[in-house]
Amino acid sequence: MKKLPGIKVFAPATIGNLAVGFDCLGMALDAPGDEIVARFCEEPGVHIRKITGDGGKLPRDAKTNTAGLAALRLLEYLGETKRGIEFELHKKMPLGSGLGSSAASAVAGVMAVNELLKRPLEKRELLPFALMGEAMASGGAHADNVAPALLGGIILVPGNGADIVRLPVPPGLFAAVVHPKVEVLTRNARGILKREVPLEKFTEQVAAMGGFVAGLFRSDLDLLSKTLKDVVIEPQRKHLIPCFDEVKAAALEKGALGCSISGSGPSVFALALNSLEAERIGKAMQAVFQAGGIESTLYLSSANQEGARKL
Amino acid sequence: MKKLPGIKVFAPATIGNLAVGFDCLGMALDAPGDEIVARFCEEPGVHIRKITGDGGKLPRDAKTNTAGLAALRLLEYLGETKRGIEFELHKKMPLGSGLGSSAASAVAGVMAVNELLKRPLEKRELLPFALMGEAMASGGAHADNVAPALLGGIILVPGNGADIVRLPVPPGLFAAVVHPKVEVLTRNARGILKREVPLEKFTEQVAAMGGFVAGLFRSDLDLLSKTLKDVVIEPQRKHLIPCFDEVKAAALEKGALGCSISGSGPSVFALALNSLEAERIGKAMQAVFQAGGIESTLYLSSANQEGARKL
Repeated sequence: MKKLPGIKVFAPATIGNLAVGFDCLGMALDAPGDEIVARFCEEPGVHIRKITGDGGKLPRDAKTNTAGLAALRLLEYLGETKRGIEFELHKKMPLGSGLGSSAASAVAGVMAVNELLKRPLEKRELLPFALMGEAMASGGAHADNVAPALLGGIILVPGNGADIVRLPVPPGLFAAVVHPKVEVLTRNARGILKREVPLEKFTEQVAAMGGFVAGLFRSDLDLLSKTLKDVVIEPQRKHLIPCFDEVKAAALEKGALGCSISGSGPSVFALALNSLEAERIGKAMQAVFQAGGIESTLYLSSANQEGARKL
Repeated sequence: MKKLPGIKVFAPATIGNLAVGFDCLGMALDAPGDEIVARFCEEPGVHIRKITGDGGKLPRDAKTNTAGLAALRLLEYLGETKRGIEFELHKKMPLGSGLGSSAASAVAGVMAVNELLKRPLEKRELLPFALMGEAMASGGAHADNVAPALLGGIILVPGNGADIVRLPVPPGLFAAVVHPKVEVLTRNARGILKREVPLEKFTEQVAAMGGFVAGLFRSDLDLLSKTLKDVVIEPQRKHLIPCFDEVKAAALEKGALGCSISGSGPSVFALALNSLEAERIGKAMQAVFQAGGIESTLYLSSANQEGARKL
């Protein structure tokens, strides 16, 4: 069968929560990310022909695959259910790492459909469909990974996921993200959280969010450094990550603006003034994991200002 | 005894919490406020010669009076304990109203001393001493009233009270504050609060703070309207204020950006697009109290950008 011409899209990894905003704040990275090659085919529906980089862990049935489901929902909305589309999904980022793997796939799925159909929707309008894919994977429709993976930058989701607020990113801001080779499942990381937050911690975290957003608007690195913290979730999850306290201490000692868990972990991120600092910080974090006998991968990235894109 | 020449200072009322930021956010009003007339006298120490407008409720002993104690602490810091200073305190705002009465007095006290001594400290440096006075009155050193009363504007206190962040105020923003004639003591209003906040409400309020601060920086009234809310404290305190739900509904119905409890109440505030809207909203709020048999006073004010000042 002759293959019809196709397109390729990229959707980036993201730092969910970004310490300050549990389930409501996230930042897009330049890399790693997922790629989808998509083309029309004869058979109606979405067909996942091939997945690479997942170690065989992801479902091949489109209805139970985040990228496939998001794509299907978008096709339904567009009234294009008679279309046949086939995907090759290339996972170029680790699964279950706290880097928004499922969000990247869901975003790549809707981007692929939208590009293949010559952009019937604006990028921002794709958000609800990507969220549907993400919801299936992570058990809840939080946009803190999906929104930055789609739209780029640092994004706040102040309400039910329909509204998003793109926050300014200070020039030079760079992230070091270290992924240790230990697995944490998002569902488990969510399950261990207490259902209640002490009033004092609540107040402290609300204030930190206000200061962090003000710091972004002002490019006030001192204020960002004072407010880039998570006094509620991190203390409950950090025991899932071996050596976390020591890794964080190393990052701060090397000049990180702040350091916390990326999403539900086990990846640990630090924000830095520039790429040189980020590299120094990231290597120090890796060295601590290494000393604890844990292999890790380091990702260095500015805030990806574009989000998902056609390649 | 011949009276030495004196000075007069003003410190404004404030909307503590401003719905979004429990114990960490506040806004200064143009009026009402407290005035202190201060002059040197022979006898060392701070002497409160007269208080008007308090119905005899406030202590005359400087050590137990918020204005007096704040002034004493400042004199000690300055090494000026041999100075004799006398105060006349004119309370031009209601006590126990949720308008930051004790904060205004504490701020007026330190302003009076600083002005009388020809400004040995910058205004911002007066904050810790005003906080000491406030702490005695309200049982805790929260700067959400003291900082805006001293420095003006909308102020976020992201940390322990030493750091403050002045937030931009959108042009035209106006407050309607209605003080119903029912008494709520701050200590009691604090005592009824649960020590724990549900995780979902925590997340919602953190996100709201982020959106509200972004809305202020962008002058985005739609975003301000969506995020000017208190999903944690207001539901626990509103039963202390008769007719609260109806008053709030009236404010929103008339176009308020948001409406909540000022400080620990019983005053209720609404923010509006401009002075005309604020007046219409304020009168509608008063009408609801009136229908419930409750007398009230309406204050209309822009955000006071100067804070405390010499008159």
